[in-house]
Amino acid sequence: MSTPDTTYLEVPADIDQAGLTALIDAWLEAVPDAQHRAEQIAELQVPERVRVLEVLDAEQVTELLDHASPHAGSDVLDGLPGDLQSRALGLAAPDVVAEILRLSPEDEQDALRGALDVEDRSVVETLLAYPEGTVGARMTPRVTAIGGALTVREANRAARAQAADTETIAYVYVVDEDEQLIGVLSFRDLVLAPGSAVVRDIMDTDLLSVQVDTDQEAAGRILIANHLFALPVVDHGRLVGIITSDDVADIIDEEGTEDAERQGGSAPLDLPYLRASPWLLWRKRIIWLLVLFVAEAYTGTVLRHFEEELEAVVALSFFIPLLIGTGGNTGTQITSTLVRAMAIGEVRLRDMGRVLIKELSAGSMIAITMALAAIIRAWTLGVGWEVALTVTLTVAAIVLWSSFIGSVMPLLLRRVGLDPAVVSAPMIATIVDGTGLVIYFEIAKVILF
Amino acid sequence: MSTPDTTYLEVPADIDQAGLTALIDAWLEAVPDAQHRAEQIAELQVPERVRVLEVLDAEQVTELLDHASPHAGSDVLDGLPGDLQSRALGLAAPDVVAEILRLSPEDEQDALRGALDVEDRSVVETLLAYPEGTVGARMTPRVTAIGGALTVREANRAARAQAADTETIAYVYVVDEDEQLIGVLSFRDLVLAPGSAVVRDIMDTDLLSVQVDTDQEAAGRILIANHLFALPVVDHGRLVGIITSDDVADIIDEEGTEDAERQGGSAPLDLPYLRASPWLLWRKRIIWLLVLFVAEAYTGTVLRHFEEELEAVVALSFFIPLLIGTGGNTGTQITSTLVRAMAIGEVRLRDMGRVLIKELSAGSMIAITMALAAIIRAWTLGVGWEVALTVTLTVAAIVLWSSFIGSVMPLLLRRVGLDPAVVSAPMIATIVDGTGLVIYFEIAKVILF
Repeated sequence: MSTPDTTYLEVPADIDQAGLTALIDAWLEAVPDAQHRAEQIAELQVPERVRVLEVLDAEQVTELLDHASPHAGSDVLDGLPGDLQSRALGLAAPDVVAEILRLSPEDEQDALRGALDVEDRSVVETLLAYPEGTVGARMTPRVTAIGGALTVREANRAARAQAADTETIAYVYVVDEDEQLIGVLSFRDLVLAPGSAVVRDIMDTDLLSVQVDTDQEAAGRILIANHLFALPVVDHGRLVGIITSDDVADIIDEEGTEDAERQGGSAPLDLPYLRASPWLLWRKRIIWLLVLFVAEAYTGTVLRHFEEELEAVVALSFFIPLLIGTGGNTGTQITSTLVRAMAIGEVRLRDMGRVLIKELSAGSMIAITMALAAIIRAWTLGVGWEVALTVTLTVAAIVLWSSFIGSVMPLLLRRVGLDPAVVSAPMIATIVDGTGLVIYFEIAKVILF
Repeated sequence: MSTPDTTYLEVPADIDQAGLTALIDAWLEAVPDAQHRAEQIAELQVPERVRVLEVLDAEQVTELLDHASPHAGSDVLDGLPGDLQSRALGLAAPDVVAEILRLSPEDEQDALRGALDVEDRSVVETLLAYPEGTVGARMTPRVTAIGGALTVREANRAARAQAADTETIAYVYVVDEDEQLIGVLSFRDLVLAPGSAVVRDIMDTDLLSVQVDTDQEAAGRILIANHLFALPVVDHGRLVGIITSDDVADIIDEEGTEDAERQGGSAPLDLPYLRASPWLLWRKRIIWLLVLFVAEAYTGTVLRHFEEELEAVVALSFFIPLLIGTGGNTGTQITSTLVRAMAIGEVRLRDMGRVLIKELSAGSMIAITMALAAIIRAWTLGVGWEVALTVTLTVAAIVLWSSFIGSVMPLLLRRVGLDPAVVSAPMIATIVDGTGLVIYFEIAKVILF
């Protein structure tokens, strides 16, 4: 939702070097957003892209790659000559380079690896060795670390010496001789403390850290819940990197997208939407559609079972979509709210009792309201009081039933260690459809037959 | 999803001061997470809470309020004596204080305001004056700003002098004599540049900023897309604050929750789930339920219209839930993915054509697959070839129809300036239910009658 671009980057074939430089300067001025810049450069053909990248200075290339998404960065580099790739990757942060490598097609990864210098390559390989989804794979290994025995004056000097290489200097971490993390100083502390004070005496030992194999969303949640800019990452106590709040915002966004897709009854795309082919969309969607189709097919069996009743009172069939639809809507409202609350850590397993009481209370009030609406609807359709009574009682029963299903299902999944986000809107609707019909016809049998 | 707490804070009635101090030290050690600390303190009765807060030192109180959520912070302060509130609020960051005030009940806001000293109160009132949802209401007004004429040495001194008061020193902003924002230096630049260089010559003038009345999610998206730690906030060019990446993560989370709730067919709760009363849940849910009920009631009219066909071939009714359910599922998959992609800025209005082509291609493949599944299902129910053919053709038609509806609706809403997130799973299901039945019976009429 950034501001729309009105300026697009176009490189006329006959433009000379001076003209191109002026054009790019004007364009940089008009498009300050790194993500938009990268997207626009990526849309150019290789020869134009080469010309543009050759005009940009080191700082501009660094910013382009470090501040845009790795998807966009990978598109910018795609198909470029090796020396240009080499220059660009040498300027980008190692975690960005690792992410770009991860996103590039298999056959291009080797070329990109070859474009890295030896030192960068080893750092990047370390990051790539951590499994995707862990903090290790997303952290930046460049972190400001100092010894506890230094004075504040010495520490300042050391922190400055490392500043050129580190991504953030909001915090300076303190390690012992075995690189074990023992404390933290905010850079503010370092700036305000007297120069002769010893780091060990003024450092904060009360600090949060995460293991390198922690799930990246779990780490992100800790950072967010504690309003930190960075969280140190340790491997058996040894400081190996930091995860920063800008990366966390990315992680949280990705997980939010996955959850939204799951909630809609689809497998996560794991790709930006516009990059997904129709074939990929088909693959990610068809499995759940078929599973739900098979589950929903049960409704046909239920209806055939009650064929006699349906033939005797055809008016019963008029209300089928309305009744099961209302049940599905009620359940969907609950799961979407509850699954989200669980995803962001607001609701935990131990809250199960509170959730059930809350939802069944709200469900009872909703049941009464919807039953009133059902009476009115049955009356306007003119179906006689027996059918009207059946429909009214069924609405109330289905609302309560789906309130129960909607609140219990996500908690049960978490209980057995599964991700509650798979309880999608379509899944709840499907469960309520079949069972709701049974409720409907059982009530009908009592009242009508 | 932070690690579960095994240690809970309990204050025995007969504990002496030394015992309490030792107990709290051990507890701080065991529970390093500020959010968990605040939640646990908030659960204590007022007298115990007073004792605990009196033991914590200034830094610990600051951390407790600045790093936990304002909801938790407001609970910690609730009902405390004025002098303790005054001490705590005096230590917290102004944007946190403003947020706590905003969340407190009306009748307590005056007491809390009174607990602020004059200078803090004026800063907080400024923040409270900006409408909720804008960057102004969420920014921190404490920002490091220096003049462009300074040398790097002087700038370093000035930045240090301001460091005690500013929240982040990742960036130092450069302003002219009218406080107009003219450039930025990363603190790294400031540390690495020669001491005699002039700020104006080395500052980066190519910087992103947002207007103070910008929507907070839009600002957050710019910060995330560009991987920044902070984004300067300006009012007619004048630097008035910054919005930092830890706040943005919060904002993104809140907006994600609102969207998830809307997608489930409910109005946003605007409160953490566990704080919502059953009465509030009822209010937030019932409106959409009734709207959808009225819309869905149309299915009854459709079915009554085809009463003769239904009476003649009762087997047609067996497939009603399956057909409209499959349509609803297909549409829900698309809207959930698309609405999310639009929310995070991946899909814009100008992509409408690409989206439609992609979705109708995927929809065609899904239609063929589901039609095959429908043949099998009709055959196992033993309903005769005419009904089987009707069901098969209807599945294919409904899948295509709901692919169209599911992809066009969110884009249309954005087109007319509404939030696409209101196209919820229940809404799509409801639209497809009624129209899907018309498709079904029209096909049936051609084949069966």
